[in-house]
Amino acid sequence: MRPPVIVNSKTMQGTGQLPKFKEDLFKLEGLDAYLIPTAEVPVTNFYQDEIIDVTKPIMFTAFTPCFRAEAGSGGRDMRGLIRAHQFNKVELVKLVSHKDLKSEFEKTVLDAKSILELLELPFRELQLCSGDLGFSSEETIDLEV
Amino acid sequence: MRPPVIVNSKTMQGTGQLPKFKEDLFKLEGLDAYLIPTAEVPVTNFYQDEIIDVTKPIMFTAFTPCFRAEAGSGGRDMRGLIRAHQFNKVELVKLVSHKDLKSEFEKTVLDAKSILELLELPFRELQLCSGDLGFSSEETIDLEV
Repeated sequence: MRPPVIVNSKTMQGTGQLPKFKEDLFKLEGLDAYLIPTAEVPVTNFYQDEIIDVTKPIMFTAFTPCFRAEAGSGGRDMRGLIRAHQFNKVELVKLVSHKDLKSEFEKTVLDAKSILELLELPFRELQLCSGDLGFSSEETIDLEV
Repeated sequence: MRPPVIVNSKTMQGTGQLPKFKEDLFKLEGLDAYLIPTAEVPVTNFYQDEIIDVTKPIMFTAFTPCFRAEAGSGGRDMRGLIRAHQFNKVELVKLVSHKDLKSEFEKTVLDAKSILELLELPFRELQLCSGDLGFSSEETIDLEV
């Protein structure tokens, strides 16, 4: 999927970027429109307000530029790729039933790790503090190269 | 080159998008920052305020998303790829001396045409009316697929 990188506030709420991370977003002047910080936003909202059958997981991948205002960042937070205002990223999104949640989540982390291993990139696995998560996230693991 | 797609007003003036085409641009709220309508903007401004040696032409290519507000469009102007708010585009930029201008311009048009012919895409060649050009353009030819 090559989704749009400009989305409205309803879509930003759908994946929890709004209201909590408003200062991290670039907003377009005079419009209800924001630049996406990750392709997770338009991809996950592809089925916004629909009831869908996830007996089998629905899987998407997308490649987009991502935009971060990083207005509140400072000190130790200023280093690394995800501190850039613009970067390209491949996104993996799975829509699954609650019973498949844990196993599909673990598979996704393994998929991402195996790509880093194939590329021979050293990385560390970081479990994010729940205080740094949006309301739509139960658990977040960052693989930091 | 994979340039940034957010640029400031000085850069937009450097390639003539500002002031004439302001209503076609997306501006970021609270910042002197705009989304590029074409990679021509960041690529040409790569040498902003520099005096460079163009005895030999300097050539760049870039692939970026492009953004158009299309605020003033209507009727016949609403059709086609370049009427979309976001699309991906390959850009060819040459920095040349005045004596090479005509020949390099013609070569660039031929290069673009030959790609369309290789892809077997029918197209028409359109010479833009000077009233539709910015102050930085002497001549513009659109190849419309």
